[in-house]
Amino acid sequence: MEAEIITIGDELLIGQVTDTNSGWMGQQLNRNGVNVRYRSAVSDRAEDISSVLDIALKRSTLVLITGGLGPTKDDITKKTLCDYFGMGWRTDQLVLADVRGFFKRFGREVTEVNLQQANVPDGCVALRNKLGTAPGMWFERDGRIIVSLPGVPHEMKGLMTDEVLPRIMQKFALPGIVHKTILTQGIGESWLAEKIAAWEDSLAAEHIRLAYLPSPGIVRLRLSIYEGKKEDAEKCIARKMEEVLPLIHDYVFGFDDDTLENVVGSLLRERKKTISTAESCTGGNIAHMITSVPGSSDYYIGSVIAYADRIKENQLDVLPETLAKDGAVSEYVVKEMAVNARKKLVTDYAIAVSGIAGPGGATEAKPLGTTWIAVSGPEGTFAKKFIFGDSRERNILRASVAGLAFLRKLILGELK
Amino acid sequence: MEAEIITIGDELLIGQVTDTNSGWMGQQLNRNGVNVRYRSAVSDRAEDISSVLDIALKRSTLVLITGGLGPTKDDITKKTLCDYFGMGWRTDQLVLADVRGFFKRFGREVTEVNLQQANVPDGCVALRNKLGTAPGMWFERDGRIIVSLPGVPHEMKGLMTDEVLPRIMQKFALPGIVHKTILTQGIGESWLAEKIAAWEDSLAAEHIRLAYLPSPGIVRLRLSIYEGKKEDAEKCIARKMEEVLPLIHDYVFGFDDDTLENVVGSLLRERKKTISTAESCTGGNIAHMITSVPGSSDYYIGSVIAYADRIKENQLDVLPETLAKDGAVSEYVVKEMAVNARKKLVTDYAIAVSGIAGPGGATEAKPLGTTWIAVSGPEGTFAKKFIFGDSRERNILRASVAGLAFLRKLILGELK
Repeated sequence: MEAEIITIGDELLIGQVTDTNSGWMGQQLNRNGVNVRYRSAVSDRAEDISSVLDIALKRSTLVLITGGLGPTKDDITKKTLCDYFGMGWRTDQLVLADVRGFFKRFGREVTEVNLQQANVPDGCVALRNKLGTAPGMWFERDGRIIVSLPGVPHEMKGLMTDEVLPRIMQKFALPGIVHKTILTQGIGESWLAEKIAAWEDSLAAEHIRLAYLPSPGIVRLRLSIYEGKKEDAEKCIARKMEEVLPLIHDYVFGFDDDTLENVVGSLLRERKKTISTAESCTGGNIAHMITSVPGSSDYYIGSVIAYADRIKENQLDVLPETLAKDGAVSEYVVKEMAVNARKKLVTDYAIAVSGIAGPGGATEAKPLGTTWIAVSGPEGTFAKKFIFGDSRERNILRASVAGLAFLRKLILGELK
Repeated sequence: MEAEIITIGDELLIGQVTDTNSGWMGQQLNRNGVNVRYRSAVSDRAEDISSVLDIALKRSTLVLITGGLGPTKDDITKKTLCDYFGMGWRTDQLVLADVRGFFKRFGREVTEVNLQQANVPDGCVALRNKLGTAPGMWFERDGRIIVSLPGVPHEMKGLMTDEVLPRIMQKFALPGIVHKTILTQGIGESWLAEKIAAWEDSLAAEHIRLAYLPSPGIVRLRLSIYEGKKEDAEKCIARKMEEVLPLIHDYVFGFDDDTLENVVGSLLRERKKTISTAESCTGGNIAHMITSVPGSSDYYIGSVIAYADRIKENQLDVLPETLAKDGAVSEYVVKEMAVNARKKLVTDYAIAVSGIAGPGGATEAKPLGTTWIAVSGPEGTFAKKFIFGDSRERNILRASVAGLAFLRKLILGELK
């Protein structure tokens, strides 16, 4: 089945808000065998919404819309859909009770504007929203399904999970779409392509499509089969995976939805080990990545973010002589940071980073992006120099990712 | 002029990659008077790309395409455009020299696949890419302009800034589009709407459109005028701003592209003051936000991320009795954390946070999302309790944003 996603809001078109909804919806639909083929974003103008709906209903069986259902006056999706389908209005009593309950729960007065959320086009099924006041709406027309959802990400997700996906599953017999993704760190896209060129050529005969998905420090390789039986596709992809993994073993850290912070977290939890970080140029981003994982308090203890050199000296006992001799971005300083973080915070492992994120701070000997990373653990202490690029944001990301990947290798005994 | 943006790549449709390109492009175009009216994402299939191009060329004067120009085999945009416009191929000598230069700079061997980047459709202008190997391409056809750019964000941005925007400015006389955005923190969308209801009703007569843009902890209010002379529009919006600001003064922290971390950073720099953080549940995210600002080393000194209670005791001198009596998520603990961070890291200000981010850790007395935040400075030490929600990610974000907003009020002398 072919689906498409329409997001509504001027803020998307002028770039004030990044659309993360369609990506998440695409993931969920795809996992359930629904092929998302198109995605559009359109302004909060009734004529534009109608024109995009016209196009969508010509080419797709399922059309999912998000945005424009808020209580404020700039939100016009509900009225536009009601007009588009030529429907009247009704008040949904269940939704009305939900809205009242929602405000009662937070001890707030319910306003007239909020109560209007319970008015819906009379030809739709109202989908109850547990996390907000705007209901979803499910329309069926000429064999097409049109679903309208709020744009607030967690409300949209709740409605997709509880209401929309189950209804789609029930209504359609869906084919198998199989994806498998290999996650690599520490090698660029074109060098990766060279290493696997012959293997890549063999994929067409198996109807496997291969995609390279680069992000700062990481390249994901996605294998996809869109046809045939799900079981056969899974077997075929598993076989090709076995062929390619030995070629790129040094770079692979996980599969599918794994993240470096999850992979490292699982290793620490399995081994009952703890970790701390000592960060300069990454400014807490490694700690933030580690603690974005639910349950990370099982292994993450704490960090010293030593941005100023005096914090490196006073809180991490880096010797003033080392700082004076080699500068803060140097092998010996990051090694002292890592070793002393372990000692002072009493953890099994530590990651330390010191670098020049930019835009200021570069010298001839240490160009922008120069970064030293150290990892320390029962296996020993290792340091490595990287030269990233000239974007501050990317340098922080790449250093964080490289630090976590470096630690993973230490834990797995791959550093010598 | 009406423009639209097309992004190409299966990874967007199945949600493996979040599209940040179209947002950034929309911002840049809008600032320069180009109205982005539609945005589409489409898979790496030639027929889908062509069908979306057909639709775009019917309704828009300017069509910007990103993605699918990489050196690997899954990238088919260039060939598809060449076929679509019925063109032949040529090798662009300047691009060829750029590609060779690019690899020389990084001391790497140039491969055959990389050299092919210099082959372009013979009817386009190749736009030289300083940050990568794939050139942009500029096509003109029947009064329409079609521009194809690489999907790697920093390469796309470089080409937009250096090549595409200047050519558009040169080619078209553009009208004024005026936006002004007010940034608020600490009040929900519908309460904000109630406070300004009468004022909002007065906007239609002035041809001003108002949008509410909520994100965790923050609501942005955007006023827009799409018609008339730019000068008149600016005056009109300035007048309406003067009317609304007194109504919502307590919540406003900035305008337009301001961020809380930028606003707080500027205040600290102006006053020559320094800051540290002591974070538990935010796990370094406040430090990360502060240090995402270029030049933050002028005022940010460092942090102690005290995830485990023993780090609160050993590194931040929180008294074991306070922890035992009130628990880690309590007024006295965050106050001690803030006061002692200032003392130990020797900074003028400190922010401290301790909360239950979830999913685990909640009790009847302290439900999920319960968070204590303290700020401490020469003006005194203040603490406040918040109850956020049940999403870990949102709780971390909302606590970080609330902490920075709280500190801003302390610095401005608004806390009593």
